[in-house]
Amino acid sequence: MGKTKVSNAIIRRLPRYRRYLGYLQTKGIKKISSNELSEMIGYTASQIRQDLNTFGEFGQQGYGYEVDRLYKEINKILGLDREYKTVVVGVGNLGQAITNYTYYYKIGFNIIGLFDVNPKIVGNVINDVEVMDSADLEEYVRREKIDIGIICVNRENAQRVADELVAGGVKGIWNFAPIDLDIPEGVALESVHLSDSLHALSFMIKRMNEEAAE
Amino acid sequence: MGKTKVSNAIIRRLPRYRRYLGYLQTKGIKKISSNELSEMIGYTASQIRQDLNTFGEFGQQGYGYEVDRLYKEINKILGLDREYKTVVVGVGNLGQAITNYTYYYKIGFNIIGLFDVNPKIVGNVINDVEVMDSADLEEYVRREKIDIGIICVNRENAQRVADELVAGGVKGIWNFAPIDLDIPEGVALESVHLSDSLHALSFMIKRMNEEAAE
Repeated sequence: MGKTKVSNAIIRRLPRYRRYLGYLQTKGIKKISSNELSEMIGYTASQIRQDLNTFGEFGQQGYGYEVDRLYKEINKILGLDREYKTVVVGVGNLGQAITNYTYYYKIGFNIIGLFDVNPKIVGNVINDVEVMDSADLEEYVRREKIDIGIICVNRENAQRVADELVAGGVKGIWNFAPIDLDIPEGVALESVHLSDSLHALSFMIKRMNEEAAE
Repeated sequence: MGKTKVSNAIIRRLPRYRRYLGYLQTKGIKKISSNELSEMIGYTASQIRQDLNTFGEFGQQGYGYEVDRLYKEINKILGLDREYKTVVVGVGNLGQAITNYTYYYKIGFNIIGLFDVNPKIVGNVINDVEVMDSADLEEYVRREKIDIGIICVNRENAQRVADELVAGGVKGIWNFAPIDLDIPEGVALESVHLSDSLHALSFMIKRMNEEAAE
């Protein structure tokens, strides 16, 4: 399976499938056809069948998908059937929110280290984890074999933090700093650019106002 | 200009242009060519020229772009040359972080109302704004002519909150609940699905591990 080329687009679609299947589970729904999934998610049924066929045979023609089984399989595909040792760097407002968020949805992303440069924050305890000094980040990441680093520092410090995480040996970085990080091949990078998202919203509002004014 | 069809892709690229131009400003850089921009941002120079030409004549052949002027123009294009009356619904960890985030980066998104259903939170004051009871949301949105509603409630309540915001007359919704909201035409919707993003990261890590194991 490793050789299968997986497009960037499918990386975006798979978590959505998981999200909808999780929702169906909470509703007690046991099976669903690709047409029904299509109606919920908004992708075509053939797109859905094709996506899922990339990873195996999960459906049965004329029957559809078993929700529980498909949910479990998608968890496996997404790498959610294991645990990730995770650190958060930058424990300001956003860092704390992300820490709490990840803690709350505990599904394998175990935050075992928090780091900050601010001496007023170092030593604080959040969800049973003490905030450490960022100066010790790289060594800690190496020693504890950290899998994922979550970057919640400002733009000026984000690349340096990323370099330290990479030097320490992380496998992936979840970046919230408003910068496109330079990361070597072999390390996964996923960024959440909140300001880009907010500005996309204001842009859409502006376009709608202009259209309404015509 | 209202008639120009603007693709979904350009909505994603424009905030990035703004972000890089803002960065260049902090570095004191006064002008930049589309080739230099291309090297920084990773889009082709012709893509950049084409994107910017959609909105006017900002560059000069053989000279490039004036950073300050282009930054200002992009702000205008993105609708960042005005203020937006904004409310946040759901003032838990994430809601508070988003409130603080938006407050901190104050560039027109003025949070004037906070709402929550939890009586323990109602009455609290965050950045000089008192948390109100969600029961009063729709009336408040209508009375105060709120432009944007930020949804930070859980999946189960997000659609109801969205319906109330829409009924109250918001122009746009910034949604952080893990659900794809159903919003009528004429209201802009932008969602940040944190769990999708985190799962995309674990998926990429898994693929890299598999490739490394081959």
